Amino acid sequence: MNQEQNKIPRATAKRLPLYYRFLQNLSASGKKRVSSAELSEAVKVDSATIRRDFSYFGALGKKGYGYNVQSLLTFFSSALDQDEVTKVALIGVGNLGTAFLNYNFLKNNNTKIEIAFDVDPSKVGTKIGDVPVYEIHQIGEKIKEEDIQVAILTVPVHVAQSITDELIKADIKGILNFTPARLNVPSSIRIHHIDLAVELQSLVYFLKNYPED
Amino acid sequence: MNQEQNKIPRATAKRLPLYYRFLQNLSASGKKRVSSAELSEAVKVDSATIRRDFSYFGALGKKGYGYNVQSLLTFFSSALDQDEVTKVALIGVGNLGTAFLNYNFLKNNNTKIEIAFDVDPSKVGTKIGDVPVYEIHQIGEKIKEEDIQVAILTVPVHVAQSITDELIKADIKGILNFTPARLNVPSSIRIHHIDLAVELQSLVYFLKNYPED
Repeated sequence: MNQEQNKIPRATAKRLPLYYRFLQNLSASGKKRVSSAELSEAVKVDSATIRRDFSYFGALGKKGYGYNVQSLLTFFSSALDQDEVTKVALIGVGNLGTAFLNYNFLKNNNTKIEIAFDVDPSKVGTKIGDVPVYEIHQIGEKIKEEDIQVAILTVPVHVAQSITDELIKADIKGILNFTPARLNVPSSIRIHHIDLAVELQSLVYFLKNYPED
Repeated sequence: MNQEQNKIPRATAKRLPLYYRFLQNLSASGKKRVSSAELSEAVKVDSATIRRDFSYFGALGKKGYGYNVQSLLTFFSSALDQDEVTKVALIGVGNLGTAFLNYNFLKNNNTKIEIAFDVDPSKVGTKIGDVPVYEIHQIGEKIKEEDIQVAILTVPVHVAQSITDELIKADIKGILNFTPARLNVPSSIRIHHIDLAVELQSLVYFLKNYPED
């Protein structure tokens, strides 16, 4: 990452993967250019915000022409470090965890679930979606051995904090938390929390209060 | 909903379920008051934004005291219409769908998955997590019969649009889309899209570019 990219505001940075994914689809379908209005419709971000976001990456858009899809892709690919694979561990091979292992982010070039952990003896020692499943007590050992920095947490809520404590000891840097638990971690560790109940509640709230969009 | 609440900005509205969930936890653990700094730490929203959000609900906070947990809960509960249950259908009982059925948002008072749909004959006619599974071709009939307005979409990406078309015909109002597909729907239908690959990519991006938060 160069200095320039470090100046991108957080809110903009958060939208980068979304833009990137959509532009990949556009490119795959043979589109050469895209307007901010089309982008807005597709990614559900208003077009003024898109134009401002893109202005941080340099003057890539032209009035009446829009943006060149390939130039945007090249920029995003570099910004998102698509060349460098980040190794991920998955903790908790229940239904949600199994869904991740089978999916394994095949469309991403830059993230790969390398190892998984569970307590169930019928799962430990097997491979699910090509990913080996280890006993949960091997977290410290295996994560250090494989030099893994990111964990996906799909365990029951009542063990979420104790397993997080193990991940902290294993020097994990980021956790994608799918449990309803709010985890206590040192400020050096980044947590993204996806609470599926909150997502559903948010949709219902919008339906009730903004029905006429 | 009264007029006052309709004036809440979108961005604030989006955070309501998150605030509500955290305040429920606080209340359950016996806490009577909370500062915007504590809230900020817990829900990962900066405290200036929290204070601005809360100001839309009236002057609920006091300097040096913080916010009364119970007053906030009462407000949010009413804003989120916790009394009125929204019935939800789940389409696609794979690993991710099964995870939803077993979880079924028990901590929410206001959303309940009533029926599910799949193509797999070994699943159709059974109940998973107490939810009956119907054949996918029954979507139109059953969703109208049960007067369901919200659907969770956890089907393979290549059938996402065709099933969405069925949901549109069945007069669904909102879709929580967990497939990587960008769905085409009339503007009267609200879609919230949760792309798990994008979420992981976003976490990795932040780790690489803002390691020192």
